[in-house]
Amino acid sequence: MCGIVGYVGESQAAPILLEGLSKLEYRGYDSAGMAVYDGEKIHVKKATGRLKVLSELTHDGTMLPGHVGIGHTRWATHGEPSDVNAHPHCNTDQTIAVVHNGIIENYLKLKNMLLEKGYRFISETDTEVLAQLLDYYYKGNPLEAITKVMHRVEGSYALGIIFSDYPDTVYSVRKDSPLIVGKGTDGNLIASDVPAVLKYTREVFFIQNEEIACLKKDAIEFYNVDGEPIQKESKMIEWDVNAAEKGGYEHFMLKEMYEQPKTVRDTLSPRIKDGKIEIEELGMTDEEIRAINRIHIVACGSAYHTGVTAKYVFEGMARIPVEVDLASEFRYRNPILDENDLVIIISQSGETADSLAALREAKSQEIKTLGIVNVIGSSIAREADKVMYTWAGPEIAVATTKAYSAQLIAQYLLAIKFAAARGRITDQEVEEYLGDLKKLPDQIELLLSNQTKIQKFANRYIAAKDVFFIGRGIDYAISMEGSLKLKEISYVHSEAYAAGELKHGTISLIEDGTLVVAVATQEDLYKKTVSNMVEVKTRGAFVMAVTNEGNIDIEKAADYVIYIPLTNKYFTNSLAIIPLQLFGYYVSVGKGCDVDKPRNLAKSVTVE
Amino acid sequence: MCGIVGYVGESQAAPILLEGLSKLEYRGYDSAGMAVYDGEKIHVKKATGRLKVLSELTHDGTMLPGHVGIGHTRWATHGEPSDVNAHPHCNTDQTIAVVHNGIIENYLKLKNMLLEKGYRFISETDTEVLAQLLDYYYKGNPLEAITKVMHRVEGSYALGIIFSDYPDTVYSVRKDSPLIVGKGTDGNLIASDVPAVLKYTREVFFIQNEEIACLKKDAIEFYNVDGEPIQKESKMIEWDVNAAEKGGYEHFMLKEMYEQPKTVRDTLSPRIKDGKIEIEELGMTDEEIRAINRIHIVACGSAYHTGVTAKYVFEGMARIPVEVDLASEFRYRNPILDENDLVIIISQSGETADSLAALREAKSQEIKTLGIVNVIGSSIAREADKVMYTWAGPEIAVATTKAYSAQLIAQYLLAIKFAAARGRITDQEVEEYLGDLKKLPDQIELLLSNQTKIQKFANRYIAAKDVFFIGRGIDYAISMEGSLKLKEISYVHSEAYAAGELKHGTISLIEDGTLVVAVATQEDLYKKTVSNMVEVKTRGAFVMAVTNEGNIDIEKAADYVIYIPLTNKYFTNSLAIIPLQLFGYYVSVGKGCDVDKPRNLAKSVTVE
Repeated sequence: MCGIVGYVGESQAAPILLEGLSKLEYRGYDSAGMAVYDGEKIHVKKATGRLKVLSELTHDGTMLPGHVGIGHTRWATHGEPSDVNAHPHCNTDQTIAVVHNGIIENYLKLKNMLLEKGYRFISETDTEVLAQLLDYYYKGNPLEAITKVMHRVEGSYALGIIFSDYPDTVYSVRKDSPLIVGKGTDGNLIASDVPAVLKYTREVFFIQNEEIACLKKDAIEFYNVDGEPIQKESKMIEWDVNAAEKGGYEHFMLKEMYEQPKTVRDTLSPRIKDGKIEIEELGMTDEEIRAINRIHIVACGSAYHTGVTAKYVFEGMARIPVEVDLASEFRYRNPILDENDLVIIISQSGETADSLAALREAKSQEIKTLGIVNVIGSSIAREADKVMYTWAGPEIAVATTKAYSAQLIAQYLLAIKFAAARGRITDQEVEEYLGDLKKLPDQIELLLSNQTKIQKFANRYIAAKDVFFIGRGIDYAISMEGSLKLKEISYVHSEAYAAGELKHGTISLIEDGTLVVAVATQEDLYKKTVSNMVEVKTRGAFVMAVTNEGNIDIEKAADYVIYIPLTNKYFTNSLAIIPLQLFGYYVSVGKGCDVDKPRNLAKSVTVE
Repeated sequence: MCGIVGYVGESQAAPILLEGLSKLEYRGYDSAGMAVYDGEKIHVKKATGRLKVLSELTHDGTMLPGHVGIGHTRWATHGEPSDVNAHPHCNTDQTIAVVHNGIIENYLKLKNMLLEKGYRFISETDTEVLAQLLDYYYKGNPLEAITKVMHRVEGSYALGIIFSDYPDTVYSVRKDSPLIVGKGTDGNLIASDVPAVLKYTREVFFIQNEEIACLKKDAIEFYNVDGEPIQKESKMIEWDVNAAEKGGYEHFMLKEMYEQPKTVRDTLSPRIKDGKIEIEELGMTDEEIRAINRIHIVACGSAYHTGVTAKYVFEGMARIPVEVDLASEFRYRNPILDENDLVIIISQSGETADSLAALREAKSQEIKTLGIVNVIGSSIAREADKVMYTWAGPEIAVATTKAYSAQLIAQYLLAIKFAAARGRITDQEVEEYLGDLKKLPDQIELLLSNQTKIQKFANRYIAAKDVFFIGRGIDYAISMEGSLKLKEISYVHSEAYAAGELKHGTISLIEDGTLVVAVATQEDLYKKTVSNMVEVKTRGAFVMAVTNEGNIDIEKAADYVIYIPLTNKYFTNSLAIIPLQLFGYYVSVGKGCDVDKPRNLAKSVTVE
């Protein structure tokens, strides 16, 4: 993961680097560092832990003089989090400093080559290899050294580089890791993501793969991998910087959960006109929709869970066959695609490395692609043939909630539109579906108001070691997400199972008092799931059930029941997930975990 | 689950019932019971725990006089394991006794109806409702009462019933649970499965859904659901009764692991003739194979994991798209099937309820079906259009090993045959693949000889709470099975993850010392998996790797390495799973668990 920044201009660099890094901390936060040229030489400061440690160490940057520098906030991939492994990394003379986001796959081979040439290394990182390799190729021309390094390394990278021989310039280059350049009034910046530069400028260049940027305080030049100059156009960013503040909530996650009614409404409303669904950005005629042979939904983590849900919706409503794949698997399994297939890539950040690679795999086979993403101008948004935005706004908590809810809505809308275009549902059914969708925001509001009850229940499980989530059909998809929400922020080993599959092994883990969360919102599968609840209860499990209003008889088989308001069977995920999000949140709060930034995790997974 | 038996004849019934139940204990073992008519009335004996408790209670049955009776070994579904919930269940006068395998889904409704009529219940079971419902409808004609009950109940059942008014007859009926009738020389028997009767007879009738059997000591009559007589033909069983003994090993599971070289050879050899694959039972011409549009593999548990593996093999080798589904999900998700699709159902027992239902779902849509099963004459074997047997022999341990290995081989053979028929591979490639397959038995043998080393390692993890298995592609499928083997018999909460997906949440559970088992047999994904190993190691995990001979550099990223011999990339599951089976086995042994009969589990899952 990791976030990088760089600055060159009239102001002192270090405070600006720290300010930028603070907006990138969502990308990683196990250590941080800066390298600044002070007029004589390059000085490096690093610190293990959150960014504030580095801030304190440098008195908010004021202790580091100089007008050109680079900075880094790290999420460890090679080498444990430590001062020595923190970025920036330098060559032995400390005349070249590098910050890096990505993974150099052939670093061991390169390291061995450099060791033979007499180079010595002090860290375990792949990035130090880059710094020494730059040294090896550097003969006085930074651009030449950089392009030579680009030809030798395999893997992904966004780099910020300074050379003490060229103290007026920040060099930068990327491949498969995000990078933007901001053009400011008193200086220019590089960063992994737009929010890092918004305080200084709204004029931004999106750097493409294998493009090099050279920033001086009053000029920005771009080059290709052969070192030839290229022209690029900037874009103006319209975002509101303050939208990402906590607004009175204890955690971003809680705030974002409470934003879900708005998120759902925002994603829904602009696409319903005169009782019909209009998804202009889709750019497909009804004829083209009818020609779709098969849909492949590709995503990671929670976005993948929305895809598992959508499979049931697309297949049930529109009778289009759907395959759902983990992006990390799809990209390498040489998928069999047909020219009439549609590949849907889902990613909140639009930068998820595996999802982006999956998108490129589909494009390389000339298959139509549609991105469902939350961040405008992100890599997936830029590269997909069509893009449908989820209007969730910035999401800061690592555990997604509102972006997840918005992704569901986007896919419901697509499914209804596809079903109508293919003559599978009548205008009246479309109207009914839309009626149910429009009720969702208020229904979510109602479920959120239940928080105190769920908090009380959650407090009983802060010592739980193992929790199982079970369900069938869409309820299985809900279980997957409910389980992930709990495990990722509260470190309870929870696991989701198709309810009918539990008997094939996992039920042997059920002991007296083990919590089993059963999701039973699908009426046609209700009795079957209740049978599975009885089976685990018989073996001592404490059963918490999430089911539809009115299913009172479930109380015979469950120890604790949460009822959700009635909606169409295809949309129950949007409601049932709310109490499960709250449950995960309150277990985490009760345990005293760092809710918004769980250990080992980063918000935007831009490495494989 | 549960197993039922019944006997009527010249001999004392109880010892014969106990003998039969002992062969069915694999179907459940939390309590057992018998009902025998002694010439005056029906006597019932029940006991919680293994069958031997009941044997001791009745002095091996000798204390229960009478020549007609029924017996039951239970795997609880409704009501905890206890004496009162054990079968048989009776009406209030104890003039009717019932044993039942299955689940009555509408039992609560029926119970309420009977309560209103004044009936009283002593157990929590659905079966007692059957006994009382028989009482309610019984007006002197057992057959009439049985057919009326059949019309009222919903769910699955195989029943054995005796009436004290008709002390010369055992009544029996089934729907969606297995049932056979054995025709003996000094009496006749019913049972859930063939081994229960083999000591007395080899002549067997397979009872179909909603057929009724009435057994007297010298006659067997069959009726349909309307009470009309029907004719059935018996079959002669060729099995060897002794094949299922432990043969000197401490556990059936260990014995069966050591039988894997033979199992693989037995499944492979008869299908290779003159360097070509001949699968006569497939009954498909090359033209028909070329017409296959898509394959759906449907299974549960470990069999599902072989399907996940086979997806990669079929798609990679033959370029036929494959979808793999859990049977419990497939049967209810209204799958979209095409007339040119092939549905492959995999089940060791051939009786797995969900897999059987999935088979019927496919057949109802008139899609071609192929069963890969281990038990001849089992329901799936009888009902699938075509059946390919795995020649693994009887498997007794609940945790499958040799049947799993045989299922892999069957699917490899199909994939090679399909790839050749579709012109995707040359004769020479076929030859090479077959050469690699033929080497597998010796290579498995070699891996098994490593047991002491793995036992030592396993002993270090008997206190482990959480273990994670990671891999990519086929290595992910291997991880799933490795994880299940560990968890089901040793009750360690292990979980398998696609290596690239771990970062999307689950990595937050990695703590100092957490065991992560990384499978890295796929050379093209090797570097990626090693990157993921480094990520978890960086966070404190202890990494055990399973990789190919020669990948020595993995020792930089792993703390403990097991090397497997070289084979084709498609076949590595057959080798890599061996050390993981041994690991699961020895953790279970080290913890003192009941390896062959883990708690809460049964061998053949004949309920949903």
